[in-house]
Amino acid sequence: MRLSVFFMPTLKETPAEAQIASHRLMLRAGMVRQSAAGIYSWLPLGWKVLRKIQQIVREEQDAAGAQEVLMPTIQSADIWRESGRYDAYGKEMLRITDRHDREMLYGPTNEELITQLFRDNVKSYRELPKILYHIQWKFRDEVRPRFGVMRGREFLMKDSYSFDVDYEGAKRSYEVMFNAYLKTFKRMGLTAIPMQADPGAIGGNLSHEFHILAETGESGVFYDIAYDELAAKGEIDLDALSRLYAVTDEKHDPNAPNVPPPERLKVARGIEVGHIFYFGTKYSKAMNAVVAGPDGNPLVVEMGSYGIGVSRLVGAIVEAFHDDRGIKWPESVAPFKVGLINLKVGDSACDTVCEDIYRRLSAAGVEILYDDRDERAGVKFADMDLIGLPWQLVAGPKGLAAGVVELKSRHTGEKQELSVESALARLCG
Amino acid sequence: MRLSVFFMPTLKETPAEAQIASHRLMLRAGMVRQSAAGIYSWLPLGWKVLRKIQQIVREEQDAAGAQEVLMPTIQSADIWRESGRYDAYGKEMLRITDRHDREMLYGPTNEELITQLFRDNVKSYRELPKILYHIQWKFRDEVRPRFGVMRGREFLMKDSYSFDVDYEGAKRSYEVMFNAYLKTFKRMGLTAIPMQADPGAIGGNLSHEFHILAETGESGVFYDIAYDELAAKGEIDLDALSRLYAVTDEKHDPNAPNVPPPERLKVARGIEVGHIFYFGTKYSKAMNAVVAGPDGNPLVVEMGSYGIGVSRLVGAIVEAFHDDRGIKWPESVAPFKVGLINLKVGDSACDTVCEDIYRRLSAAGVEILYDDRDERAGVKFADMDLIGLPWQLVAGPKGLAAGVVELKSRHTGEKQELSVESALARLCG
Repeated sequence: MRLSVFFMPTLKETPAEAQIASHRLMLRAGMVRQSAAGIYSWLPLGWKVLRKIQQIVREEQDAAGAQEVLMPTIQSADIWRESGRYDAYGKEMLRITDRHDREMLYGPTNEELITQLFRDNVKSYRELPKILYHIQWKFRDEVRPRFGVMRGREFLMKDSYSFDVDYEGAKRSYEVMFNAYLKTFKRMGLTAIPMQADPGAIGGNLSHEFHILAETGESGVFYDIAYDELAAKGEIDLDALSRLYAVTDEKHDPNAPNVPPPERLKVARGIEVGHIFYFGTKYSKAMNAVVAGPDGNPLVVEMGSYGIGVSRLVGAIVEAFHDDRGIKWPESVAPFKVGLINLKVGDSACDTVCEDIYRRLSAAGVEILYDDRDERAGVKFADMDLIGLPWQLVAGPKGLAAGVVELKSRHTGEKQELSVESALARLCG
Repeated sequence: MRLSVFFMPTLKETPAEAQIASHRLMLRAGMVRQSAAGIYSWLPLGWKVLRKIQQIVREEQDAAGAQEVLMPTIQSADIWRESGRYDAYGKEMLRITDRHDREMLYGPTNEELITQLFRDNVKSYRELPKILYHIQWKFRDEVRPRFGVMRGREFLMKDSYSFDVDYEGAKRSYEVMFNAYLKTFKRMGLTAIPMQADPGAIGGNLSHEFHILAETGESGVFYDIAYDELAAKGEIDLDALSRLYAVTDEKHDPNAPNVPPPERLKVARGIEVGHIFYFGTKYSKAMNAVVAGPDGNPLVVEMGSYGIGVSRLVGAIVEAFHDDRGIKWPESVAPFKVGLINLKVGDSACDTVCEDIYRRLSAAGVEILYDDRDERAGVKFADMDLIGLPWQLVAGPKGLAAGVVELKSRHTGEKQELSVESALARLCG
């Protein structure tokens, strides 16, 4: 993509309304724009990142055996009355009346809808286990939306739902999703710590919040460093995990029986990006989601639900990876892998070399943003640092006269002078 | 994917509420389920098709130079007041009041929101032309939703918006989108005829509805067969096109000056799947979307909008490609390319060969649905015809004893007995 045509309205000034780094940087980089309180449009740069995150989430869900569906955003109030949550949900639910005066709502979550879908279409225990998921926009009418996409009203969420014939099955599904989550966040370059959502219930506790570590995180997190060793194995066994202490500050109790000694207690800051929990027959009983069991008798299914805040992750990743100058995207979610800076547009050596690099990297399938604008070098460097592509390739008259371009890593800041061929070889690897 | 675990609840009986073929077949094939009037959940089979259609639309928009964004579903009433459409829109607009009593709505279309986005972020004529698009769910509160996803309330639409400095530029953008549409529909195996939306305005008319031909189409269409010759060239020149007669039945006037003689007038049935139009400065003037012109003076931008009914296309394609037994997907949008039928699950020869085929085709990246259920052959054949995968590969004990499997084309019905190796070679090609 050529920056001269790319729709990326960067801002020099920090918008006054932005209180946290990710909000400031996402606005300044031209990734998003607010159109109403807590409601955002995603511009091309932001939308590319959101889609990459979505795709990683999808691939790991598929790899775990979950099947993708898409439920609608607008739901009937009727099914929420069946579960008993319609009146209980409160003002965060966006309630809507249609032209025929039917009560509808914009889904804040999908337990009811998936339970309805399941009960109408799955008849026998033989069809279980099943894990269904979708990635869909939700709406929660927050009283005070803030922090950009981190606490918006319309937000993109991946939610999965598991259906099993018994508790043992539900626990297996939970474990499958748990490990899929660890893989998902790891692919985004994140360290995710599963916090016990209900730390009182040691052992039998099947509810975890996943927090990613970020210095600017919203919550304090306290966890046993033995977790890092466990996580290094790749797959985590829930029973082993349940013995380890890991809670957010609001639940931290220094006198709890499994708090590790100070030298093993890690204190950090985190951002919640996922929440998984087993809820048994809460919805299936209320909504009569039963299958025929092996003996022919109806069997109320055991359910769990598993959420990831997909649009929230964009902000969370920026919180985890940025410096004073801008964003530093992990390569797996970067909107482009390479930013090519032509230091002197109009100079025939610069133009020829840059066009050649642009053409060859594009042909090799490397995502590249070519700054071909007629702008000062300072503006180009500042914009490139701001938008945070992992690699910057700089071509100027002086370097080219000496046969070199400069390759800079946005993460480490390390710079190297290389021939064009060497630089291309490095970036195609 | 193994059918024994795939969530595909097919129906033997035709649901009473379904009046047209696509609605019947999509319900019976387990592609969609209605959750409220005109609101559908997409099950895995339907969602796969919808995503493929979406991806073709996206690729052709990108190839045409349009840039993808994502605008939210919920909009503020304020911008619709600026354009003057808030009161004019009528009951099809789903109007919503949030917890702070602010008037909101679920976007039925996005002219206002994109115009707001443009005016806040594009400042100079140098940044034009620009075509921005998104693929997003819309809501129109139809008084009587019907025909399944063909006329639902919540539906997926691709809408593009062009911004130019003058009429000539706007016309070029229109032509670019026009040709992108022809390519888009062609890749889905469809014949799309651009109907003059306002046939009175010969020559200067920049508004077309794209209808795809289907025997069961909702509208009669009348068009000059010279169109087919013009379309065969791949790119269509708007001026040449504007001389050709092409209208839907409601606008057909046998006495219009450019109606071709009977032998050149083709009469068919069509389904509207796209609509493009130039609307000049209608929104930009009302909402003050101006850029600085070359002389520094403000310049009101010229706009056009370009829609494709993405979820509607799923139904339209089924209308165009089906028979009494079920759907016949064009390969480019088929949920899987191959359906593998094991005629005797439990028979060791059948199981071994089928597992081998399944593994090898999957490894080669061929999308395959393996019917490994313990069901009667009749059920398997009926389900496979119903869901309409382009190729059926059938392995049974008799054939395998003779060293062959049967390969059937769902489109032509043609069957061939082949060795496993030959069949694999054909399907990997």
